[in-house]
Amino acid sequence: MRYELYYQPSIQGRGEFVRLALEDAGADYVDVARDPAFGRPGIVKILEDPTVEHPSFAPPFLKAGKLMIGQTANILQFLGPRLGLVPKDQASRLWVHQLQLTITDWVAEVGATHHPIANALYYEEQKEEAKKRSAFFTSQRIPKFMGYYEKILTQNGNARPYLLGRKICYTDLSLFQMVEGLRYAFPRAMAKVEPSCPRVVALHDKVMSRPRIKKYLASPRRLAFNENGIFRHYPELDEA
Amino acid sequence: MRYELYYQPSIQGRGEFVRLALEDAGADYVDVARDPAFGRPGIVKILEDPTVEHPSFAPPFLKAGKLMIGQTANILQFLGPRLGLVPKDQASRLWVHQLQLTITDWVAEVGATHHPIANALYYEEQKEEAKKRSAFFTSQRIPKFMGYYEKILTQNGNARPYLLGRKICYTDLSLFQMVEGLRYAFPRAMAKVEPSCPRVVALHDKVMSRPRIKKYLASPRRLAFNENGIFRHYPELDEA
Repeated sequence: MRYELYYQPSIQGRGEFVRLALEDAGADYVDVARDPAFGRPGIVKILEDPTVEHPSFAPPFLKAGKLMIGQTANILQFLGPRLGLVPKDQASRLWVHQLQLTITDWVAEVGATHHPIANALYYEEQKEEAKKRSAFFTSQRIPKFMGYYEKILTQNGNARPYLLGRKICYTDLSLFQMVEGLRYAFPRAMAKVEPSCPRVVALHDKVMSRPRIKKYLASPRRLAFNENGIFRHYPELDEA
Repeated sequence: MRYELYYQPSIQGRGEFVRLALEDAGADYVDVARDPAFGRPGIVKILEDPTVEHPSFAPPFLKAGKLMIGQTANILQFLGPRLGLVPKDQASRLWVHQLQLTITDWVAEVGATHHPIANALYYEEQKEEAKKRSAFFTSQRIPKFMGYYEKILTQNGNARPYLLGRKICYTDLSLFQMVEGLRYAFPRAMAKVEPSCPRVVALHDKVMSRPRIKKYLASPRRLAFNENGIFRHYPELDEA
C-alpha cells in the first residue's frame, strides 16, 4: 500500500516521527506537501473540506487506503504492526503506545519552551517567559523524561537494548528523534544530562546506524532542524 | 474483572476521564488511592517499584488482571471495547482514539493556563504569565477546540447526536468533562462560546442525564472541582 502523509513541508515537526517509521521500514509513501504533484495546498484543502469524514484537528495525518488517521501517536500505532515496528500481541502494543504517548507529552513541553504564552505570538513576543520556562525544562524535565526511558532500558538489561527488548519498535525511532532534537535545541543541557543516560544514548546511536535510517538522514528527504519547528536552537534558552 | 485505577485521591484530574468510562459502564473497579484498604502510598510504591514491568511516567494507570496500562487515552482505548464504549471495528477505534488524543492536547493546554512556566512552581509564582496565557486560551483555543467537536457533530446530523453517531463512545464522556471543567474554570469565556456550539452543549446534557452518570455525579465518588486540579477557577484568568 502507498501511504500518503500530510504534514507541513518545511519543518520536521511532529510529522518526523511518522516519517522515521515509514523510512525505517522502507515503506512506499508520499510526503504530500513536499511532492510537486500535490503541494501544500493539498493539506489546507483537506483540513477545510467539509466532506472529509474523519477530519483532523491539525496535521500530521495519514491516508491509508480508505482510512484517514490523525494524531501522531495514533498514526504510529496504526502503522506499527504493518511496518513490523511492534509485535501483534495486545500487551506489547499497549505498552509501546504508552511509551509513545509519553513522547507526545514531552514534545508538547519542548514546544512550550519557546511558546509558553501562545502559539499565535512570535517567539520574540514571549522571549522573557520562554527563558523562565526553559530554565525549568532543561534542569528538571529533560532529566526526568530521559531518566524515565533510561530506567526502562536499564530494567531490560544489556542484552535487550531496545525499549521492548531485542527488537526495535516505533517508539525507539521517536526516542532517537527526541535526543537529536534536544541536542540541536539545548546542546549544553543535553551535554550535562547524557552521561547519566548511557542506554538512551546507545539506543540513539543504534537507531542512527540502521541502514535505511542512515540513508534517510543523508538524503534531502530529511529536513534540517530550523527555528520554525518544535526543536529550536535559541542559545539564550539553553543552560549556561 | 475488577479494575484497579491508580490516581491521585483528591482531584478529578486526568483520572476523571477514566472514572467516567468505568462509571458509565457500571464496571467493577476500585479507585485505589481513595480506598481505605489501599490508600495513596499504594501509588507512590508502584511508581517507584523497580520490579514493575511497565512503569508509568505518571498517574493515572490501570491494573487489569496482569496488564498495567498508563496514559489516560491508552487506558480508555483499552477499556473502550470491554465496556461497550466503542465498536470493535478498527476504523471506529482509530477515529475515537484520535478524538480522545485531541482531548489530551486540550487538557494539557488547560493545565498550562495556570502553570505556563513550570508545574514545579505555585500558581502565585507565575500569575502574571498565567494571565497572558489564559487570555489567548479563552479567546482563541476554547473556541477552536469547541468548534472542532461542533463541526464533527454537525457533520453527523440531528439524528446522530454522539461523536460516533447513534451510539455513545468514551470520548463523548470526556467531552462532557471538558465542558464541565471549562464551565467551572472559565464561566464567562464559556458563556460566550457555548451559543455557537449547541451540539456540544446538547451532547454534554445527554451524557449528564445518563442514569449511571447521574448517580455517579451525585455520589461522593465524584470529587468537586478544586484549585489543585487541572480545571481551576481563578477569576482573574477568565474573560472580562
